[in-house]
Amino acid sequence: MFKIALAQINTTVGDFAGNANLILDYLSRAKAAKASLVVFPELAVGGYPPEDLVLKNHFVENNLKTLSSLVKKVHGIAAVVGFVDADSKGKIYNAAAFIEEGAIKTIYHKNELPNYGVFDEKRYFRPGSFEANKGLISLNGRKIGISICEDIWIDGSVYAKQSKAGAKILVNISSSPYEAGKLKIRQELLLRRAKETKAAIIYCNVVGGQDELVFDGASMVVGSDGRLMARAKQFEEELLVCDMDAASNPLAPLLDETQEVYQALVAGTRDYVQKNGFSKVALGLSGGIDSSLVAVIAVDALGADNVIGISMPSRFNVKATRQDAKMVAGNLGIKCKEISIKRIHQIYLRVLAKHFKGLAPDITEENLQARIRGDILMAFSNKFGWLILTTGNKSEMAVGYCTLYGDMSGGFAPLKDIFKTRVYELARWRNSQQENHPIPKSVFLRAPTAELRPHQTDEESLGAYQQLDEVLDAYVQRHQSVGTIVKDSTQLAYVKKIVNLVDKNEYKRRQAPPGVKITGRAFGRDWRLPITNKYKE
Amino acid sequence: MFKIALAQINTTVGDFAGNANLILDYLSRAKAAKASLVVFPELAVGGYPPEDLVLKNHFVENNLKTLSSLVKKVHGIAAVVGFVDADSKGKIYNAAAFIEEGAIKTIYHKNELPNYGVFDEKRYFRPGSFEANKGLISLNGRKIGISICEDIWIDGSVYAKQSKAGAKILVNISSSPYEAGKLKIRQELLLRRAKETKAAIIYCNVVGGQDELVFDGASMVVGSDGRLMARAKQFEEELLVCDMDAASNPLAPLLDETQEVYQALVAGTRDYVQKNGFSKVALGLSGGIDSSLVAVIAVDALGADNVIGISMPSRFNVKATRQDAKMVAGNLGIKCKEISIKRIHQIYLRVLAKHFKGLAPDITEENLQARIRGDILMAFSNKFGWLILTTGNKSEMAVGYCTLYGDMSGGFAPLKDIFKTRVYELARWRNSQQENHPIPKSVFLRAPTAELRPHQTDEESLGAYQQLDEVLDAYVQRHQSVGTIVKDSTQLAYVKKIVNLVDKNEYKRRQAPPGVKITGRAFGRDWRLPITNKYKE
Repeated sequence: MFKIALAQINTTVGDFAGNANLILDYLSRAKAAKASLVVFPELAVGGYPPEDLVLKNHFVENNLKTLSSLVKKVHGIAAVVGFVDADSKGKIYNAAAFIEEGAIKTIYHKNELPNYGVFDEKRYFRPGSFEANKGLISLNGRKIGISICEDIWIDGSVYAKQSKAGAKILVNISSSPYEAGKLKIRQELLLRRAKETKAAIIYCNVVGGQDELVFDGASMVVGSDGRLMARAKQFEEELLVCDMDAASNPLAPLLDETQEVYQALVAGTRDYVQKNGFSKVALGLSGGIDSSLVAVIAVDALGADNVIGISMPSRFNVKATRQDAKMVAGNLGIKCKEISIKRIHQIYLRVLAKHFKGLAPDITEENLQARIRGDILMAFSNKFGWLILTTGNKSEMAVGYCTLYGDMSGGFAPLKDIFKTRVYELARWRNSQQENHPIPKSVFLRAPTAELRPHQTDEESLGAYQQLDEVLDAYVQRHQSVGTIVKDSTQLAYVKKIVNLVDKNEYKRRQAPPGVKITGRAFGRDWRLPITNKYKE
Repeated sequence: MFKIALAQINTTVGDFAGNANLILDYLSRAKAAKASLVVFPELAVGGYPPEDLVLKNHFVENNLKTLSSLVKKVHGIAAVVGFVDADSKGKIYNAAAFIEEGAIKTIYHKNELPNYGVFDEKRYFRPGSFEANKGLISLNGRKIGISICEDIWIDGSVYAKQSKAGAKILVNISSSPYEAGKLKIRQELLLRRAKETKAAIIYCNVVGGQDELVFDGASMVVGSDGRLMARAKQFEEELLVCDMDAASNPLAPLLDETQEVYQALVAGTRDYVQKNGFSKVALGLSGGIDSSLVAVIAVDALGADNVIGISMPSRFNVKATRQDAKMVAGNLGIKCKEISIKRIHQIYLRVLAKHFKGLAPDITEENLQARIRGDILMAFSNKFGWLILTTGNKSEMAVGYCTLYGDMSGGFAPLKDIFKTRVYELARWRNSQQENHPIPKSVFLRAPTAELRPHQTDEESLGAYQQLDEVLDAYVQRHQSVGTIVKDSTQLAYVKKIVNLVDKNEYKRRQAPPGVKITGRAFGRDWRLPITNKYKE
């Protein structure tokens, strides 16, 4: 029997006291489970990613003090703990401490620093070098190599050198952000690394939400024969204890892709709300598919008692959508308020009439309605301390089919990285999970509309969502050119129109609330396009 | 006679056609001036910083095509042009082409890639190596070294190696963003490098605004004796022609610091507005110092005909501030509209009354007024195509003393990086520039107030601005700890309060419009703090 425990914990950035308690709790649970070693995620002490907090010396010092106090409490079990190390010149490192009997035995510095996508690690950290510290330890007569996240992704990096130096177990501590489809790639990588090195792989990932990122956990152990030995759950805290000598260990099943994305949205929303000190959220319920889905996500994340729907009909909202909004609230058992924006809109128009004399109504009057709704939601937020969830999706955010300071007003945007076609998929999947469908059929059947003028539909303005999302997938997700996207000349004008909308609406995205990153290219830290940009192919 | 021309041009990101025309124009002017060599700034072909545009293959290809077409037109003069180079594997480099008689003679790749502050160059580019390409050329029998921006900032880097290899002239092409006080450091560096290498330094910088950055120009030539030979103007395009063998060359005087900051705001605002296709701006004129200063900046940037003031009194605005707003408009000769928000506010309160029954008025009702103003400004923006300038300053942005979707609504925030105490300095300086002061004395004398409730003043909520700005300078600009900031225990509670406000208002800053970066740490690409953050010292 040789048990290793993987502490898949949900840390909070900057919460040294809270993280330390969590670490000690899992440490004692691992000890109780008779593990010889317990492994914590990358930068567990201060949370991940700390971003510019690590540019503050006092933050780094507090993190070192926290580590010191933890070290003293490690007895009867060995531990690997991620933290920010600093040298005498104040240079800092993404580090892992190997701790035994109240003392740090070795400190390994991450060699490979990711600086792409959402990652800015070269902004903060110096790379370690294998020559300076090999990250090799010895435990119960077994030689073990320690590495950090990116180190195991780069062919021939640290893990390979440790294996050549005789390590039979490769521990990798990670904070690997969720992306749809990434777990499969991650698992294949780990299986491959085991086969390549003939060493066992202990992969410990963090779990939970941090601003736009959500970490999916699914920590794993792969045997030296390249066979998956153990796996923790996705999106939940877990102490995964794996007996390296046993034939059977806990192996959580995998969620299918739609379910996985849905759980990511729930976990990301829950943690953003709660870690920022809120307990309740409110959202505008329009009777459309987006707000209906956000309401369901919010209820799954926070419970029905903590979600308030606010329906704000204008003179353009048809009776059917108002009824659907109420029905969604009723199905979910959430409170629903109805506030007409008609009179407020009228007064605005009256006050502005003299300045707009002789000019036809246009987008101005439409946007005003969206902004009045934003103002009302924010008034509730201010008065009752509710965080406002916005309900826009990625297709809208991409082409700017949304009103800045209107429906974009709010603290968190659960669907920010979800294309409209996937909104429908998620809503259908979620409905299928219970007999009494939370989202009424009529919401699926009605053509999507902003209801800001009579007989308006989204697809009249933007083309069919299927077609739109295909163009966006190519242009946004894959940075393809118009020339590559256009398959035949009849599409040229449409593709150019959409591409132009994406480019010119960067200013709106720059002022958008955060939302859960789901894809390989979300409109967040992994999307850094200039606003001032005259590029045309 | 050996003339070198420094083409200090105002490029636009992504505008290949426009930048190419600009380059050709300056090329022919340099030729007319009998220069042997003309030098263009870093990444002149595609503009700087292109950010994630360079992750698009087609962008890089278009940049290469543009360079090729330029190369053919270089005859009778040599040129150094900055562009994005790509190798056969698609890896890209921040590069400089040395062009002579219609052909590229050598391509140098930037060795030192900045990845701190606003810079993310390791996200995009591979570093060049001196071994692979020394950046050495020969012209009229003189040996010249070419390097790019950061290369000359790092002790012992490329410039030193080129000098050791015999270069007597070191050309450095830059896109060095403006920061108050940086020009002095830059000039001292260049003088030092000349003394160190006994080579002349040709330093060509770009000029103009790009999103939050403004480039200040001030291109320079330093003789091999370490003496400043020539300098171009700050914040203006210029072809600086320097005869390396002459005793006297053009030497633009330096602006003093307040003037320099003011010009940076004017240049940054003008370029943001114009490069984004706007000609007119509007702003809320409150009669306070911030909006008065923004109005003056806007007029200096765009002309009085292109600036519209909108005064939006509520029931809390005293007569004096309304009059001051009108007086500022009158002094500047800009159109001024007055729109009372009183009735709209009343209707909101009436509609919300039933939901807020039994609850005392609080920040909710105050914020509503700010949001109504935001909605009105945006209505004018939508109707007439005016870009809205917000008027908040950095002190407010730091502590969140501003209303999200209210006074923060707008496309550009000229004072985003200007502390309140500096707002006064700039306003006083600008008034001193003309006999008829644009900003009335009463605006300076009145205690700053948001006028969202009776008898409100900012300093009652935040402490004296002098004191506030000192704390912010320490906490925001220098990342100091509370322990360091507090000089005696009586300050502790105040400093903790301010620090707490800064931390908890990160969510507002994340949704703020862009503004001109003036300091070493603006609330933009150089400020990447998490929103979800439980760090307390």
